Amino acid sequence: MKQVVTFGEIMMRLSPPLNYRLSQASSLEITYGGGDANVAAALAYLGVPAAHAGCFPDNAVGRAAAQQFQHHGVDMSHCVFQGQRLGLYFLEVGASLRASRIVYDRYDSAFANLQPEWFDWDEIFSNAQLFHWTGITPAISASAAQATKEAIAAARRLGLTVSADVNYRRNLWKYGQRAQDVMPDLVAGCDLVVCTEGDAEDLFGIKAEAGAENSFVSMSQQLIRRFPQIQQVIATRRETQSASHERIKGIAFSGGQYHETEFFDINPVVDRIGGGDSFISGFIYGQLTYPTLQEALTFATAASALKHTIHGDINLVTAAEVEHIVAGNTSGRLLR
Amino acid sequence: MKQVVTFGEIMMRLSPPLNYRLSQASSLEITYGGGDANVAAALAYLGVPAAHAGCFPDNAVGRAAAQQFQHHGVDMSHCVFQGQRLGLYFLEVGASLRASRIVYDRYDSAFANLQPEWFDWDEIFSNAQLFHWTGITPAISASAAQATKEAIAAARRLGLTVSADVNYRRNLWKYGQRAQDVMPDLVAGCDLVVCTEGDAEDLFGIKAEAGAENSFVSMSQQLIRRFPQIQQVIATRRETQSASHERIKGIAFSGGQYHETEFFDINPVVDRIGGGDSFISGFIYGQLTYPTLQEALTFATAASALKHTIHGDINLVTAAEVEHIVAGNTSGRLLR
Amino acid sequence: MKQVVTFGEIMMRLSPPLNYRLSQASSLEITYGGGDANVAAALAYLGVPAAHAGCFPDNAVGRAAAQQFQHHGVDMSHCVFQGQRLGLYFLEVGASLRASRIVYDRYDSAFANLQPEWFDWDEIFSNAQLFHWTGITPAISASAAQATKEAIAAARRLGLTVSADVNYRRNLWKYGQRAQDVMPDLVAGCDLVVCTEGDAEDLFGIKAEAGAENSFVSMSQQLIRRFPQIQQVIATRRETQSASHERIKGIAFSGGQYHETEFFDINPVVDRIGGGDSFISGFIYGQLTYPTLQEALTFATAASALKHTIHGDINLVTAAEVEHIVAGNTSGRLLR
Amino acid sequence: MKQVVTFGEIMMRLSPPLNYRLSQASSLEITYGGGDANVAAALAYLGVPAAHAGCFPDNAVGRAAAQQFQHHGVDMSHCVFQGQRLGLYFLEVGASLRASRIVYDRYDSAFANLQPEWFDWDEIFSNAQLFHWTGITPAISASAAQATKEAIAAARRLGLTVSADVNYRRNLWKYGQRAQDVMPDLVAGCDLVVCTEGDAEDLFGIKAEAGAENSFVSMSQQLIRRFPQIQQVIATRRETQSASHERIKGIAFSGGQYHETEFFDINPVVDRIGGGDSFISGFIYGQLTYPTLQEALTFATAASALKHTIHGDINLVTAAEVEHIVAGNTSGRLLR
Amino acid sequence: MKQVVTFGEIMMRLSPPLNYRLSQASSLEITYGGGDANVAAALAYLGVPAAHAGCFPDNAVGRAAAQQFQHHGVDMSHCVFQGQRLGLYFLEVGASLRASRIVYDRYDSAFANLQPEWFDWDEIFSNAQLFHWTGITPAISASAAQATKEAIAAARRLGLTVSADVNYRRNLWKYGQRAQDVMPDLVAGCDLVVCTEGDAEDLFGIKAEAGAENSFVSMSQQLIRRFPQIQQVIATRRETQSASHERIKGIAFSGGQYHETEFFDINPVVDRIGGGDSFISGFIYGQLTYPTLQEALTFATAASALKHTIHGDINLVTAAEVEHIVAGNTSGRLLR
Amino acid sequence: MKQVVTFGEIMMRLSPPLNYRLSQASSLEITYGGGDANVAAALAYLGVPAAHAGCFPDNAVGRAAAQQFQHHGVDMSHCVFQGQRLGLYFLEVGASLRASRIVYDRYDSAFANLQPEWFDWDEIFSNAQLFHWTGITPAISASAAQATKEAIAAARRLGLTVSADVNYRRNLWKYGQRAQDVMPDLVAGCDLVVCTEGDAEDLFGIKAEAGAENSFVSMSQQLIRRFPQIQQVIATRRETQSASHERIKGIAFSGGQYHETEFFDINPVVDRIGGGDSFISGFIYGQLTYPTLQEALTFATAASALKHTIHGDINLVTAAEVEHIVAGNTSGRLLR
Repeated sequence: MKQVVTFGEIMMRLSPPLNYRLSQASSLEITYGGGDANVAAALAYLGVPAAHAGCFPDNAVGRAAAQQFQHHGVDMSHCVFQGQRLGLYFLEVGASLRASRIVYDRYDSAFANLQPEWFDWDEIFSNAQLFHWTGITPAISASAAQATKEAIAAARRLGLTVSADVNYRRNLWKYGQRAQDVMPDLVAGCDLVVCTEGDAEDLFGIKAEAGAENSFVSMSQQLIRRFPQIQQVIATRRETQSASHERIKGIAFSGGQYHETEFFDINPVVDRIGGGDSFISGFIYGQLTYPTLQEALTFATAASALKHTIHGDINLVTAAEVEHIVAGNTSGRLLR
Repeated sequence: MKQVVTFGEIMMRLSPPLNYRLSQASSLEITYGGGDANVAAALAYLGVPAAHAGCFPDNAVGRAAAQQFQHHGVDMSHCVFQGQRLGLYFLEVGASLRASRIVYDRYDSAFANLQPEWFDWDEIFSNAQLFHWTGITPAISASAAQATKEAIAAARRLGLTVSADVNYRRNLWKYGQRAQDVMPDLVAGCDLVVCTEGDAEDLFGIKAEAGAENSFVSMSQQLIRRFPQIQQVIATRRETQSASHERIKGIAFSGGQYHETEFFDINPVVDRIGGGDSFISGFIYGQLTYPTLQEALTFATAASALKHTIHGDINLVTAAEVEHIVAGNTSGRLLR
Repeated sequence: MKQVVTFGEIMMRLSPPLNYRLSQASSLEITYGGGDANVAAALAYLGVPAAHAGCFPDNAVGRAAAQQFQHHGVDMSHCVFQGQRLGLYFLEVGASLRASRIVYDRYDSAFANLQPEWFDWDEIFSNAQLFHWTGITPAISASAAQATKEAIAAARRLGLTVSADVNYRRNLWKYGQRAQDVMPDLVAGCDLVVCTEGDAEDLFGIKAEAGAENSFVSMSQQLIRRFPQIQQVIATRRETQSASHERIKGIAFSGGQYHETEFFDINPVVDRIGGGDSFISGFIYGQLTYPTLQEALTFATAASALKHTIHGDINLVTAAEVEHIVAGNTSGRLLR
Repeated sequence: MKQVVTFGEIMMRLSPPLNYRLSQASSLEITYGGGDANVAAALAYLGVPAAHAGCFPDNAVGRAAAQQFQHHGVDMSHCVFQGQRLGLYFLEVGASLRASRIVYDRYDSAFANLQPEWFDWDEIFSNAQLFHWTGITPAISASAAQATKEAIAAARRLGLTVSADVNYRRNLWKYGQRAQDVMPDLVAGCDLVVCTEGDAEDLFGIKAEAGAENSFVSMSQQLIRRFPQIQQVIATRRETQSASHERIKGIAFSGGQYHETEFFDINPVVDRIGGGDSFISGFIYGQLTYPTLQEALTFATAASALKHTIHGDINLVTAAEVEHIVAGNTSGRLLR
Repeated sequence: MKQVVTFGEIMMRLSPPLNYRLSQASSLEITYGGGDANVAAALAYLGVPAAHAGCFPDNAVGRAAAQQFQHHGVDMSHCVFQGQRLGLYFLEVGASLRASRIVYDRYDSAFANLQPEWFDWDEIFSNAQLFHWTGITPAISASAAQATKEAIAAARRLGLTVSADVNYRRNLWKYGQRAQDVMPDLVAGCDLVVCTEGDAEDLFGIKAEAGAENSFVSMSQQLIRRFPQIQQVIATRRETQSASHERIKGIAFSGGQYHETEFFDINPVVDRIGGGDSFISGFIYGQLTYPTLQEALTFATAASALKHTIHGDINLVTAAEVEHIVAGNTSGRLLR
Repeated sequence: MKQVVTFGEIMMRLSPPLNYRLSQASSLEITYGGGDANVAAALAYLGVPAAHAGCFPDNAVGRAAAQQFQHHGVDMSHCVFQGQRLGLYFLEVGASLRASRIVYDRYDSAFANLQPEWFDWDEIFSNAQLFHWTGITPAISASAAQATKEAIAAARRLGLTVSADVNYRRNLWKYGQRAQDVMPDLVAGCDLVVCTEGDAEDLFGIKAEAGAENSFVSMSQQLIRRFPQIQQVIATRRETQSASHERIKGIAFSGGQYHETEFFDINPVVDRIGGGDSFISGFIYGQLTYPTLQEALTFATAASALKHTIHGDINLVTAAEVEHIVAGNTSGRLLR
């Protein structure tokens, strides 16, 4: 099978043990993650060849970050080791009514300072079938946005499928360009997008029609009209009960049809970081595997539900484990 | 008080910390357990003298396994130290809809290769009142089955009560004999058995009568008819909500009467391994202590519920702690 | 802002990791706490200057205890380092239907053996606005009771507000005086008390009138009649579902009016020790900050609810974090 | 083989991880030890049946202390569970020129408050060949001294060998009697003593003769003259280079002959606590096993050297491992 | 006693456990340190009131950094909480012939971006006797250099003693000014400097005279001639055997006299970070305590030697512990 | 650069923390290693492309083992996932005069049961320049020996260099064939061998000539005469001072010349497992990099010395770090 390729920043995540606060911690558990690389790693676990293109400082910290993704089976041979520092974030894990909190420390990272010409997309995509990116990457710096643009163009040229998690984060866009100016061009090159009504309104000024029966459908129809390359719009609906209890279902609009799954109940939540990345990776796997979108969507949602029980950013589950959930085995009986 | 004696394999259990997966673990928490030895250890905590007969490799690993049971007060003086390796299993602890998973690595263990003549049952039972075994032991090897048979015969001859958890595990029976051929003779020597409808059908071809009001009663009546030494059949009913949430009640059939307890709700589950072993040990304690079967059954079920909150295979609780639950104190108020 | 000053014993708390029992632990997590010092530390986190007066052995253990409170921003300069030992307690953390259990080992502590003259209250209160104590302190020893009495007298003389958590613990009163003889004089000097119906009956023989619509109001009215200095009586109502699930609301009686908050649901509970201390510290903060008692009470209850998600005795939360809960954000959505 | 029986206090030892100081520790590693019980446990590892008589509080802490010795194979069936608290000590482990430091917190322990009549020595010694005690026990309290006296008397009456580590610690003798008044009667009942020149001077006023060629021989001769029951006086000579580097040799005087071993070099020292206890336990084993005192002394010294490489108070080594050292294998080559 | 005040950056230090490399670590131990703040903390342990002025991001990470110094007794009330990030560094601890390695990640820290006017030196020094700074601070940014300059000027004006560790690190000076242009003005205001021959040559172009009997004396004489405010020049001489074995002695030039101490041998080294900071803090303490410079120098060197046995950047030792070493107790005998 | 390919078994290594013994451990640190795969991983760190061919059970344990080598950059795409179990070994880490001890549990591993035809050596070597194996592999099973034979034949046919660590372990050869019969054919196909005088005598009956000035030279000459394909014979000389202190030098015979390096002193040793594997990987790197054998040998020996300071089986060091040692920087000065 050909590779799925992702592009984006990988950060070190530092979190106090258990539910400790930073002010009482004498050690921090570390792992590494990024919204796009998490997709590559999850796909590798599901059995889909995956590669990630990124940029790391050429020191012990940057090397360790890349190695974790090698550990999980991602081809990191297209990564560049240049620059000063690895972006990082501190995560205090909440519980019950206390939310988890993130303190970002990612400015001036090696990735933010990448040069677009360091990435030879024709070579990177030489054995690829799909390119996936997230809206976080063009938010980081002008050069990151430029590289994303070039990657999408190359992917289209070479006939790859392009998917994106538009994932608008207002705080991130600080380098002088507006998401509203940058993102449309990029999204225009995509076949598949993860996009919520809020994202669509913030980024593209698309609002569900007043009185629409299904706001997601209304938004999706307008989005596809505006960006006709898009074939599929997907998202999750979350009913967040508490930091420890989550309910999710998957929704999709494609070919004029709306699809949704049942809700999956996750109680307790072990780690919610990367829940969205596991959804899109599950959907990509599902598209490659199942005949119907409904099956792909159900697989994606079950994969995302499972992710909430896995420590770290990456969905360390096999396809068989997801299928076990899809088959209705959600009662957690011991498997010997 | 005279001893309760158990016989069976003790394995090393290795599990990643918290809910980590093996692929992300850099250390494993270890403990030791076995379906029968867990009963001995739980009884020692409840104040009943207990001994275990088993077989371990004569190296640091085997010694450590035996020492853990000494730690918990089990008389290990009848154990034999011969053979190559200790059986072990890897446990990934699940959460919510993700089930816990076990990878066994127990073949060719010292216990599997025991020689029946290493165990002098007359001496082992010289100060005993009850012998308890589980269906796992005769599944391990022909010699283990033979030793079990000899132990039961000796126990009967010396007037001990014999109890068994029939616990049929299809995967285990690999040495050339069928459970269906081996188990009937062994069960025939028992006064008390833990047995579900599924076990009875798989092992003895006993099915609850179609249309029976209570399938457990129907099965138990047939079982007792077939094995008239049996006085009591007991089991737990589980309503497994998720890997983190369990509901259990105890059921029993004895003297023509059916008994059951209320459901106990366990949320969250800390560790479900050994839940059945704590039930039977609680029942043995209850029989020795209380005038009625109903009281013994309630004690057993409360003990098993408590076990679900204890890390490791063994029910590290005192009789007073179980009685506290039996008395209805299930709301978990702080005890100073 | 002037300081809030607390007085009382700080103990070392030793607990096995996670939900382990002492008999299986090879290490103990340590923290330090005391019912009054916890109030000082929580106030320091909320931004209110706080000082604590206490007594510690002059060794590495006593110094470490005091340092933890310095860590959290409490002025420990009025503490005395004399005596033999630090009181300590062992905590086994329960889960679900298994209650947490405490084994105290606090007799003959440095604090119990303090000399009242070691504390120069005029100096200690020179920059203070409020003095807070708990019913635990006079229970420890005659000299601790005497020092409490002198502190209250000085506080009144210097125009400080005085608050108390009456917190009657029968087991503690072992030095020869009865709580019923000692406490009335002390409570008589207070403006604000945390007191439940049970405390009032045990300590002061005050029972809610038969047939009273609201037993707390009835008790509070009698309490205020007996101790006319008291302006406010507050308490929490707990609906303890299990060791892992708690529901709490705040109640208050003041100026002839009864107030109560909604229930806050905490599931799972991370650590319930110090839940009451966080309530009173939240209330003191609220009184200093908000125009109405209802707002103070809501802040106090939300603070206490948050405490149940924090490891250790001390409520390591900022005012903004409590206000976030007060504003209704109890669903635990990730904060970036 | 008949048992060796020891009597004395077991304490919880709490130490920060690695070389951390208490003021920076958030957890403490725990183990349990006592100068006499350590001898019993080491003998159990060496294959000599061993029992310990002691006294513990009847709570989770006391039970855990006793269980650790059960773990290591010591018969704890003669222990009494009564009293308020377990003695404990905090250990900061030094390195290089920084010495390890102990903060004791052992007053009013369950052991200190034992009643001599709780121990039925005739029964305790019914299967014993040797009784061992240390000078710490009579230092703890009058009742502990009395129990020691009764134990020695019973041991003599029943024909047991009696050994003692006189181990004079000035700080401990606080209950009103002087070591100089109590110890002579106890030592008079011993066959074997560990005693240095310093101990002999402090306790018995025995000084090596001025100009004696060998002060240990001179002291031993006087000691045996004064206490003619004594057959053997042994001790270790230490050349302490630093907290991390120790050199020890064994010395003995018996039958008019002086014996000594080569020096053993221990660098680095892992844990020096219990070094003396492992020496005497090694000597007891050696006496039971080897024909000559020289062999026993060498075994004892090698055992003590090995102890310095073992974490905790107890010498967790087999006889074969000590013999490996005795045979000159001190270069630490990997054993597969 | 009046305070010693320090000024400079505090960073988070992140190191893998034991001697692990970053590429194999799943957690990092954290502590906080800074060349100047370490001096304040060490003085607080020695009993000298100490305050630190610094700048931290106003988030959980910055607060935790400041709290650690509060923990150790440093008055942090003059610190400013503004800016984006806390500087940090990764430390891999070496052993034997493998050197420890540091990866810095400190650019654009809150401290680097401080505004000099945030620090009101008259107020900060209102209760101070000595101001200490290091050559790292003016290397960080122009504004940090400016603030240092203002602090020195204020200190001189208010009659404080000024000390500096000139500590030239070439890599750090990246903001556009040269150390050689900035440092002379700052050093000109100092009474006491830590300065090696290498520092003097790099910073001031001062070379020991060719053929000088003692290069340190020659350098010091020239330094004092150039900066006549300087009364004392001190330094350590290191004979680094390996990452695990260090030998140090102290040297000083003052009043025309050269002083030196014996060598202290540290084997193994637990943690060498902060060795210089502990030397200068020991010297400041010594100056305040002892009549002679030789005594102060010996105390300083013993303090620094002890630091090498303490985990973390800060010398967590009391004056009595240093004096114990000064008195010659370097063999590490257990202290009970 | 073309790949170096290795072939052999990878085992899980389980060791108690620090210097703990198994009988006192409640967790085990895990890593994975194998004498040949360690060479591949070390080469990947040094910058040489490396692949490993092996066989693992297709479960979470086997996958985790392979992933660790992916983590370190080894191409694991030629590995086969079939079979029941992963071999494992327990390691107790010694200190000072206590040797480290290994308990193997490797029988019937997936690797032992491999089928030679699972490995298509032409494909595996399609991009390779060198094949490395060790004498452990043919010792495991007949099929492993057969696969090794086929690999060597293919390597020769395809023009690869072949290297071997003959590494004779008597205990391992248990499957019915003698090393003396199997090894000669395999060694005959090698260009480079690690072989000591002991190995040569045990395996090939080659003894150094009596009176030979240099026994290694004498052995090497005979070895090369017997196996004329061999160009180079290398080995290390160890002077093992203790489990914590090692001295090593490298020796080589090639082209009729003897070479040796200086001794490297390692004190303390962090982890000696894999010391030999790091020597041969360093030598392979050196051969590819340096013009002279002496340089390669020095690099190899320095690399092996560094390995003794690294936790785990694998030499996690870069070429620059080894060169730093080669350049004489063995005093461990902090690198910033």
